Amino acid sequence: MEEIHRLSDWKYLDKKQIGITCVAFSGGQPKGGVDLGPEYVLKAGLIEQLNEMNFKTVLTDNKIHDYKEFFPKSDEPIGIIKRPRTVGIVNKILADQVYQHAKLGRLALQIGGDHSMAIGTISGMARAVKERLNQDLKVIWIDAHADINTPQTTETGNLHGMPVSYLIGLTDEKIEGLDWIVPCLKPENLVYIGLRDVDKDEKQILKKYKIQAFSMHDIDRYGIGKILDMTIEHLSKGPYPNSPIHLSFDIDALDPTVAGSTGTPVRGGLTFREGHYICEALHDTGRLVGLDMVELNPAIGDCHEDTITIGCSLIRATFGESLL
Amino acid sequence: MEEIHRLSDWKYLDKKQIGITCVAFSGGQPKGGVDLGPEYVLKAGLIEQLNEMNFKTVLTDNKIHDYKEFFPKSDEPIGIIKRPRTVGIVNKILADQVYQHAKLGRLALQIGGDHSMAIGTISGMARAVKERLNQDLKVIWIDAHADINTPQTTETGNLHGMPVSYLIGLTDEKIEGLDWIVPCLKPENLVYIGLRDVDKDEKQILKKYKIQAFSMHDIDRYGIGKILDMTIEHLSKGPYPNSPIHLSFDIDALDPTVAGSTGTPVRGGLTFREGHYICEALHDTGRLVGLDMVELNPAIGDCHEDTITIGCSLIRATFGESLL
Amino acid sequence: MEEIHRLSDWKYLDKKQIGITCVAFSGGQPKGGVDLGPEYVLKAGLIEQLNEMNFKTVLTDNKIHDYKEFFPKSDEPIGIIKRPRTVGIVNKILADQVYQHAKLGRLALQIGGDHSMAIGTISGMARAVKERLNQDLKVIWIDAHADINTPQTTETGNLHGMPVSYLIGLTDEKIEGLDWIVPCLKPENLVYIGLRDVDKDEKQILKKYKIQAFSMHDIDRYGIGKILDMTIEHLSKGPYPNSPIHLSFDIDALDPTVAGSTGTPVRGGLTFREGHYICEALHDTGRLVGLDMVELNPAIGDCHEDTITIGCSLIRATFGESLL
Ligand SMILES: [Mn+2]
Ligand SMILES: [Mn+2]
Ligand SMILES: [Mn+2]
Ligand SMILES: [Mn+2]
Ligand SMILES: [Mn+2]
Ligand SMILES: [Mn+2]
Repeated sequence: MEEIHRLSDWKYLDKKQIGITCVAFSGGQPKGGVDLGPEYVLKAGLIEQLNEMNFKTVLTDNKIHDYKEFFPKSDEPIGIIKRPRTVGIVNKILADQVYQHAKLGRLALQIGGDHSMAIGTISGMARAVKERLNQDLKVIWIDAHADINTPQTTETGNLHGMPVSYLIGLTDEKIEGLDWIVPCLKPENLVYIGLRDVDKDEKQILKKYKIQAFSMHDIDRYGIGKILDMTIEHLSKGPYPNSPIHLSFDIDALDPTVAGSTGTPVRGGLTFREGHYICEALHDTGRLVGLDMVELNPAIGDCHEDTITIGCSLIRATFGESLL
Repeated sequence: MEEIHRLSDWKYLDKKQIGITCVAFSGGQPKGGVDLGPEYVLKAGLIEQLNEMNFKTVLTDNKIHDYKEFFPKSDEPIGIIKRPRTVGIVNKILADQVYQHAKLGRLALQIGGDHSMAIGTISGMARAVKERLNQDLKVIWIDAHADINTPQTTETGNLHGMPVSYLIGLTDEKIEGLDWIVPCLKPENLVYIGLRDVDKDEKQILKKYKIQAFSMHDIDRYGIGKILDMTIEHLSKGPYPNSPIHLSFDIDALDPTVAGSTGTPVRGGLTFREGHYICEALHDTGRLVGLDMVELNPAIGDCHEDTITIGCSLIRATFGESLL
Repeated sequence: MEEIHRLSDWKYLDKKQIGITCVAFSGGQPKGGVDLGPEYVLKAGLIEQLNEMNFKTVLTDNKIHDYKEFFPKSDEPIGIIKRPRTVGIVNKILADQVYQHAKLGRLALQIGGDHSMAIGTISGMARAVKERLNQDLKVIWIDAHADINTPQTTETGNLHGMPVSYLIGLTDEKIEGLDWIVPCLKPENLVYIGLRDVDKDEKQILKKYKIQAFSMHDIDRYGIGKILDMTIEHLSKGPYPNSPIHLSFDIDALDPTVAGSTGTPVRGGLTFREGHYICEALHDTGRLVGLDMVELNPAIGDCHEDTITIGCSLIRATFGESLL
C-alpha cells in the first residue's frame, strides 16, 4: 500500500510520523469508563496497525496519561460548571503535548477520553499551525452534539458539552482553571457533521455565528458524498484554500447500533460506512494535521469490542487506509 | 424552538391547535393489538411532548375511542369483505370527528388503529378543505403496501388493504355499511412512498390511473431527498400549487428492524432516518393539515417500545421538531 | 405480473427457460458447508417461485451435482495452490453444463458452492455467446473481494480467491488440472461492485489493467443508483453496446448483518435494498444471460434461513420480480 501513503500526499507532514497522546480523562462528564478508551484502543493493536501502514509512531511520554498528578486537591463547581480546574489544567498540559508534536511536523492523534479534551488538542494544534505556517486552523467536528454550550446556556454543567464555545471564545466570563484558554477558532473555520441532538440555545448560537452545520437530515437529503464535497468547499474559502484541517471525531456521531459504547448515544446516527467515508474523504484532501478520537467508553454496553474496533478502523482510514 | 413553530409557517392553521382523535380500532384486519396503539402512544407522553412544542392539543371527546357502542350486532362478510358494516360505521363517525377539528382550522392528528381508518380521516378532512378553501385535498401515503385493492381484487377481504380504492372511488358496488362513502381523492392528488409489497392487480390499478408511486427501488435510485422533491413537485401541479396536504403514515413503511410491532411487516423498508426525513420535509412545506399514524401494534414483537417511541418521534417531526 | 416478464424484454432469451445448475462444491476454499448452498436454496422453493414467474426451469441432469465421481484420487497442493486438479475438473464439467443451456438460448442460473466455480460458469457462457452471437461476454462481479489473485500473489492458495485472474488470463503458469482454461474475459469487459477487502497485490492488478471497480466508498459517494448507471455505461462501450452480460453474485457482498451465513464476511457491505437494486437494475437492461449465486454457507451463523431467503429473493429480482 506504499503508494497510498506517499509522504507527498500529506501537505503538512515533514516526516511520516504520528505523535499519539493518550488522554485517559473523564472529568468533562459524569460517567466512569471513558477514561479507559485509550487503554482499550492500544490493546486492540492500533500502534502496530499504524506501523504496518509505514508510519513511525511516537507515544507521548511513552505512556497513557491520566494527568492525576496535576489534579487540584479540591474542585468545587463554579456556578453550574463541574470540575473547571481539573478540566482546565488537563487541557493546558494536553495543549502543550499536542503542540510539541505538531511543531515538529508530525501528525497529532489524540485518543480519549471525553470531548472536553478538544479544548487542549485544538488549542495546541492551532498554536503550532500559526507558528509553522502563519495560518488559521480549520476544524471538522463529527458529533451527534454541537458541544457549543456556554457557561450561560449549559443545563448540565458538564464541560464536554462546551469545548467549542471556549475554542471560539463565546464567553467573557473568566472561570478559575479555564482562564488560560485563548480563542483560536473562527466560526467560519468550523464545520459540523452528524448533529441530531442540539439544545435550543445551541441552535441559536449556530445561527447567530453562521456556523456551517450538517445534521443527519442534511446527510439524508444530499448523501454523504455531497456533504463532504460541501464541507471541504466551505473550508477552502479564504486566503489559504489548502489550509490545515483538524478532525475531531466523537464516536457518538455513529448510530448506537454501530458503536454503542459511548456515554450519550442518540438514535439515527451515521452508518459504519458513512463514518469511514468521512475519514477517507478527509484523508484524500492531504490537509489533515490532527485527529481526536473521543468518547469511546468500554464500560458501557455489551459489545465494546465493536466500538473499539471501529475507533481503530476510523483512525486507520483517516491516516490513509483505503478500500482500493 | 419558538422560531421553528411560528404560526406563519403553517399555511392552513388558524390557531396553534392540534385536534387529536384516538382510534382504538382493529376491524379492518384480523390481528388483535393494533387497537392498543393509541393507548400506548398517549402513555408514552405524546400530548405533553406536543404541548412542549407550544401546541394546544384537543383530544376528541377527551378519550380514546373504541366506537364499540356503534358496532352492529352482527356483521357477516359480504362476499369476501369482512366486517363491512363495522368498518363503515366507525369511519363515518371518524370522518365527522376529523371534520369538526379541521373546519376550525386545527391540525388533525389521528392515531390508529388499522389503516382502514383512513377512509374516515381523509373523507372528513377533504370535506373540511372543500368548505374552508374550495380546494381538493392532496394525500401522501407512506406504506409498504398500496392499500388500493377493490372488493373485486382483494384476496383477503380485509378492508385495511382497500381504503385508497374507496377514497378514489374505484368501485361502483354498493356494500352495506360502506355505501355512505363519497369519493374525495383524485388519482393525480395522491403520492405513495415506500411501496414494496404490492399485489399484481394493485400494480395494474396504479398504472391504469397513473398514480405517482415511489417504491423502495426508487428511493435507492434517487435518494430520499430527491424523492421528496419529486413528491412535493407532483403535489404542486394544478391550479393551487400550495394546496393542503394530508399525510397518512403506515408504520410498516419502516423496516421491520426499525419498527417491528406491526401486523404486516415487509423487509427492505425505510430506515429510521428516512422516515424522519419524510416528516421533516413535509412539515417544511407548511401545507400539512392532517396526519394519520397507523398500524402500531404493541402486541407484536419483543420491543414494542421502540415502535411506539418512533411513532411519537415521527409525529413530532411532522409537527415541526427539527434537528437544527 | 405477465407484463413484467415479457419475452421481448430479454434480448438474448429464445424461450422463457432457465437452465439451473446446482454446484454443491466447496473445494475452492477450506470451510465445509458451502456445498450445502444449492440444497437449501431448492428446499426454500426457488424452482416453484421461478415457475410462478412463468419461467420453465430445466435442472441440469435433474439433480444437485457434487461432482465427486470426477474427483482425482489424490490432489496434493501445487506450490501453494490447494486442490488444483479437483477445482479444475469440476469447472471443466461445469463449463460444459452451462454451455449446453446457453447455446439453446436459455438463461443460465448456477447456485453454489464457492466462487471458484465462476471459472466454469463464465468459461461456458463466454463460449456459447461467442458461438451464438460472435460477441464477447461482459461480466459484473458483486463481491466484498476481488477474487483476482494469481498463483503468484495468493497468500492462501484457495482458488475461490483467483477465478478472475484465470478468466482474464493473468498467469502463464500451467498448473495441472487448470491447464484447460482458455482466457475468455477482457479486463475492459468486467465491472466490480461492493469491494472492501482487497489484497495489496490485487489493488495493483486492478490498477494495472484499468479494471472498473466500485468499492463501498464509491457507493457511499455516488449512491447505488448512479453506480449502476456508471456500470451499465461502462459495459456499453465498444462495438456492441447491448452485448450480453453475466452476473456473478457473491453473497458476501452483502453486509454480514444482512446475510451472515458465508465463509468470509466483511463489515460495511451492501444493504438488503442495495443488493436487490443491483439485480433489478441489471434485469431491466434486458441483457442478462447468466447468474451465479455463490458462497451461501448454511453451516455458518445462527440465521442461515435469512441468507438463503435473500439468495432466493436476489435470484427472483434478477429474473424480473419487481416492487411495482
Ligand atoms: Mn457527542
Ligand atoms: Mn462531543
Ligand atoms: Mn402497510
Ligand atoms: Mn397501510
Ligand atoms: Mn467474497
Ligand atoms: Mn467471491
